[in-house]
Amino acid sequence: MPDEAVSLPIELIWARSKILPLIQKELPLSSFKFSLASLMQEPFNAEPPRSALVSSYVTPVELFFKRNHGPIPVVDDIERYCVDICGLIETPKKLYIRDVRMLPKYNVTATLQCAGNRRTAMSKTREVRGVGWDVSAIGNAVWGGAKLADVLELIGIPKLTSSTRSGGKHIEFVSIDKCKEENGGPYKASIPLSQATNLEADVLLAYEMNGEPLNRDHGYPLRVIVPGVIGARSVKWLDSINIIAEECQGFFMQKDYKMFPPSVDWDNIDWNTRKPQMDFPVQSVICSLEDVQTIKPGKVTISGYAVAGGDRGIERVDVSIDGGKTWMEATRFQKTGIPYIADHISSDKWAWVLFEITVDIPHTTEIVAKAVDSAANVQPEKVQDIWNLRGILNTSWHRVHVRVGHSNM
Amino acid sequence: MPDEAVSLPIELIWARSKILPLIQKELPLSSFKFSLASLMQEPFNAEPPRSALVSSYVTPVELFFKRNHGPIPVVDDIERYCVDICGLIETPKKLYIRDVRMLPKYNVTATLQCAGNRRTAMSKTREVRGVGWDVSAIGNAVWGGAKLADVLELIGIPKLTSSTRSGGKHIEFVSIDKCKEENGGPYKASIPLSQATNLEADVLLAYEMNGEPLNRDHGYPLRVIVPGVIGARSVKWLDSINIIAEECQGFFMQKDYKMFPPSVDWDNIDWNTRKPQMDFPVQSVICSLEDVQTIKPGKVTISGYAVAGGDRGIERVDVSIDGGKTWMEATRFQKTGIPYIADHISSDKWAWVLFEITVDIPHTTEIVAKAVDSAANVQPEKVQDIWNLRGILNTSWHRVHVRVGHSNM
Repeated sequence: MPDEAVSLPIELIWARSKILPLIQKELPLSSFKFSLASLMQEPFNAEPPRSALVSSYVTPVELFFKRNHGPIPVVDDIERYCVDICGLIETPKKLYIRDVRMLPKYNVTATLQCAGNRRTAMSKTREVRGVGWDVSAIGNAVWGGAKLADVLELIGIPKLTSSTRSGGKHIEFVSIDKCKEENGGPYKASIPLSQATNLEADVLLAYEMNGEPLNRDHGYPLRVIVPGVIGARSVKWLDSINIIAEECQGFFMQKDYKMFPPSVDWDNIDWNTRKPQMDFPVQSVICSLEDVQTIKPGKVTISGYAVAGGDRGIERVDVSIDGGKTWMEATRFQKTGIPYIADHISSDKWAWVLFEITVDIPHTTEIVAKAVDSAANVQPEKVQDIWNLRGILNTSWHRVHVRVGHSNM
Repeated sequence: MPDEAVSLPIELIWARSKILPLIQKELPLSSFKFSLASLMQEPFNAEPPRSALVSSYVTPVELFFKRNHGPIPVVDDIERYCVDICGLIETPKKLYIRDVRMLPKYNVTATLQCAGNRRTAMSKTREVRGVGWDVSAIGNAVWGGAKLADVLELIGIPKLTSSTRSGGKHIEFVSIDKCKEENGGPYKASIPLSQATNLEADVLLAYEMNGEPLNRDHGYPLRVIVPGVIGARSVKWLDSINIIAEECQGFFMQKDYKMFPPSVDWDNIDWNTRKPQMDFPVQSVICSLEDVQTIKPGKVTISGYAVAGGDRGIERVDVSIDGGKTWMEATRFQKTGIPYIADHISSDKWAWVLFEITVDIPHTTEIVAKAVDSAANVQPEKVQDIWNLRGILNTSWHRVHVRVGHSNM
């Protein structure tokens, strides 16, 4: 199947992108509501407009950002499709879709965020390399599938194992997806075995998204979901699972998606000095306003999302309408009618939190949002302090400029 | 035993404090090396000088900060001492020291940090209430004892339980320690049952500190260690363990140690709007220099500690010698001779990381440190943005002023 996918003519592979209207930033908001803005055609990357993103707690499939590294694979014979489980185990196994479906099914609500979310804003300080995402390379879905911990038990690796007798300490996910960064080889990533075998970590082999079968864009027929971790580790179009001794040596683990200090640039980078980024830091974004936007004077509802990596909750979202001098606390919610409490049993621990506050904006100003997670971690004020050459994890205070006027609304 | 402890004459209870010389800040550094500065006599609170704090990775018992809420209890009949395990369980149990010692013994290296560490610096912005700690209300020790998960299994609660059949969801630790905030009742705190029953969370009932029996100051005969969490939850002088449905309603859980925004003060506080603080955020502190200190021009070694809550590691420590304009990366280490790698199997995941960098300081300046944790969380630049009325979790960039001169060194 991997070979089939890449041997398809590029026109066929990209055909589905034709149904998505290509959005121009100059169009009025209303005309691109409920569609994605295409950032790149090959590979196809797209994000929804920020205002549509927070129109619901669970992101509809058609509004979920698309991040690809190669042509989108096609799996057309689902009966023959299987995942090879191999590496440091005694008996390799072929895992068919029917095997996955026979395991207990879990629905996990989890937010996936691309590490490059908000990269465009980071580039304004100093140029960075990567796809120019605005603030919508993020989405929250209900993922249905089997727990990886249950799958690994099928091949004799018990729950809560951090090392197998054969020295396996990491689980590598290999995609059908071929990409140029791997010299035509498959996209891959790994997570520690201790996380993979921990039921509480909720790592899934997912075959459903929002109650529907996974579609091709999001990894049909089977993808990994690693909650609380940058999207790059949630490998789509799963081809094989390797039990390995050291973490995956693939490009996207070792030569990308690592956090460097601002002093490191392309002429002095040493990739070996950093660990692959896994958890992401606390983040919040205003989605109800573009930057820059003209509004009428008076009451304005400011809304957006906040999310923390790991299983940390959102303790607070602060909003300022004077550029960060004074702050007000926004209300927070996940499911309608249930007040959100960080780390509470009623909250989805892997999911974003939406926030909202209605304020009076009498004059042209800068509106700012910042969140606090349940460990009291905060967002940094300035993007310069977290600038990094790959433009990942821009979690600086989110700012939008509003011009208050009496026309153009 | 609890009653015995509080009925002792106050002179006897405080007798041990007499062996500790009371330190005055004006004394030269060398004269108070290896002793604690007493901040309060009743209850007794003391911290070591910052320069002594990082003289070793494992903090010697005599340099470990002391934080008490009442007179230090005395348990003199160890054979009769026991912990009552009660609450939402069918058969309450008395847990004797011999029962604890019969369980598998674990040595866990864990850093305890008082939530009020660095409070004095926060008070400089706007006054806060609480013990005036400098930067040394923190220490790193090897705690020896039984895992709470094993203890709970003795009473029929299996590993990885988040709720018992009787509705138990939290584990409350009640101390022998009586305090005025509880109107003469015992100090208490709770953690979620899911954490208590998770072997990986390393929650201990500890009877040893750095290989020696726990001393009275640090909780003899038995204390709780909750790694990665503010010190207030690691209850000393354990008297009973309650299995309860809702989190502990004690003063220090509900009316203290909660993180409020700067806009909340004593006249508008509503304690119910916040959750008790558990994990702490990423922190780093320069310990090799006092603020303000006069040094000779030339090479200076800047060292200190960095620590993150939960089981997050320290990915980087940045040091600036120009007040935060430019930054250099410090080297990091835990055990001598083993390079520290965040989240690596060779690293103590609950322990601080020491950092060091040697720099040339030609003129009077401000030296700054800030750390990045493995989830890319960073410290906030300004203390004003995280000011809170109880002065907890001051993790703003740590700054020390050095005057460069040719005398007085």
